[in-house]
Amino acid sequence: MRVVKRSGELEDFDPAKAINAILRVGTSPEEAEAILESVKPYLYDGMTTEELYRRIRSRLPAPQAQQYSLKKAIMLLGPEGHAFESLMGRVFEQMGYQVLVRQILKGRCVSHEVDVVIVKDGKKATVECKFHNALGTKSSIQEALYTWGRFLDLKDTNNVEKPWLVTNTKFSSEVVRYACCMGMHLIGWKYPEDGGLERMIDEAHIYPITVLDIRRSEQRTLLYHDFVICDDIVERKPELLGLFPRETGERIIKKTEEFLRNVR
Amino acid sequence: MRVVKRSGELEDFDPAKAINAILRVGTSPEEAEAILESVKPYLYDGMTTEELYRRIRSRLPAPQAQQYSLKKAIMLLGPEGHAFESLMGRVFEQMGYQVLVRQILKGRCVSHEVDVVIVKDGKKATVECKFHNALGTKSSIQEALYTWGRFLDLKDTNNVEKPWLVTNTKFSSEVVRYACCMGMHLIGWKYPEDGGLERMIDEAHIYPITVLDIRRSEQRTLLYHDFVICDDIVERKPELLGLFPRETGERIIKKTEEFLRNVR
Repeated sequence: MRVVKRSGELEDFDPAKAINAILRVGTSPEEAEAILESVKPYLYDGMTTEELYRRIRSRLPAPQAQQYSLKKAIMLLGPEGHAFESLMGRVFEQMGYQVLVRQILKGRCVSHEVDVVIVKDGKKATVECKFHNALGTKSSIQEALYTWGRFLDLKDTNNVEKPWLVTNTKFSSEVVRYACCMGMHLIGWKYPEDGGLERMIDEAHIYPITVLDIRRSEQRTLLYHDFVICDDIVERKPELLGLFPRETGERIIKKTEEFLRNVR
Repeated sequence: MRVVKRSGELEDFDPAKAINAILRVGTSPEEAEAILESVKPYLYDGMTTEELYRRIRSRLPAPQAQQYSLKKAIMLLGPEGHAFESLMGRVFEQMGYQVLVRQILKGRCVSHEVDVVIVKDGKKATVECKFHNALGTKSSIQEALYTWGRFLDLKDTNNVEKPWLVTNTKFSSEVVRYACCMGMHLIGWKYPEDGGLERMIDEAHIYPITVLDIRRSEQRTLLYHDFVICDDIVERKPELLGLFPRETGERIIKKTEEFLRNVR
């Protein structure tokens, strides 16, 4: 049996790959086997990987079903990078940093809009958040080079100790080599292995509103009004209820509270 | 009367602007006035600026008609930046530099593909060629920052004295400020005023094949086979004749020789 990948390429269906994908959300190997077994009757030649994973997801016990799609949820924060910056700001805050989002800082030569400025123990760092819209896009060497160039311009005038580059996708091996060599912090999808973006988000318990099982149009309305993480919904209920018909607003709040109960 | 700009915006037709555009190709103010007068019967409310300029161009005496569209000819070298890099290599060569195009150089941390490396009087510089596909795109601060970041990584390992950033469009004022402050050379459309890209090309007499009045498909075939400047056609006639039916090939060569006679 073959599956159609996102790129349009056909590929032989590989049960080991599917098992790995299920294991990654934290199930036991036995559970993973059982889940794959239970979706087998629905598999057919030429099905898309997207449908395959939707099938699998529907079999996962909550809250894994939610974590499983964290990567997609972050993509849905786009197409612009604004909400991703806000998300990262909240994650750093939860990690005990003092955080300023989208700051204009004067450098030696020019002013820069810095996505996130973080301070802890009197040490200041700048964070460049690079949001990619498409799965499979890798962060390029250019991004690492300009992150460094910007840091150099800001370093002395703002007392910045080091730059971070955070992305929602992967880094090319070149970027990793460059960053290690220069002493630049990198955070990406599953990078570094013991503390990648997905781990930071999980540990901070800061979830983007796009993990919620609500309409895309409702997500868009929320993002437009700067509701970026689930806590925003809980904390700003009256404002939210003003944006939607009563029933819709209440349904969204209920879904959010349910989700947060499940993951905490 | 209003004209439709490339962006789709409507704008009141400004005769002074049109006169300036005509003057820029080197006509006298009287000639410019006369040309504008002669196209006036063809102007109508809601015409596109593109059509307006096509009308004007048709009234220009050759070779100005050709120079007038140099900006467009450079755009036609795209969509990728490859041919623009080759063009710039040839221009620098004509200016007396030793030139290497698309070199992989080892930096302190990683290897870089450098668009053009130029050497003169024992001094080496790296040239980042940033090709933009769309009129009106300005070179961004990110491009300047990563040009600098790349230069820093290459500087000591390759004995590079300074970086250049060359683009076929304009620079934002931020880029100009940054480059002046850092000592980075900038070349762009009409930048610097006394030696911008159009001036360098004119002075070097190095013209992209896309200035020729031949079919777009013929231009593409030529570019694909690495005929980038008009001299390539004259110097590699037998190869060119192998790419097209005899008559087509001869017509292209004739057009090229005619063009070069006009501009030299």
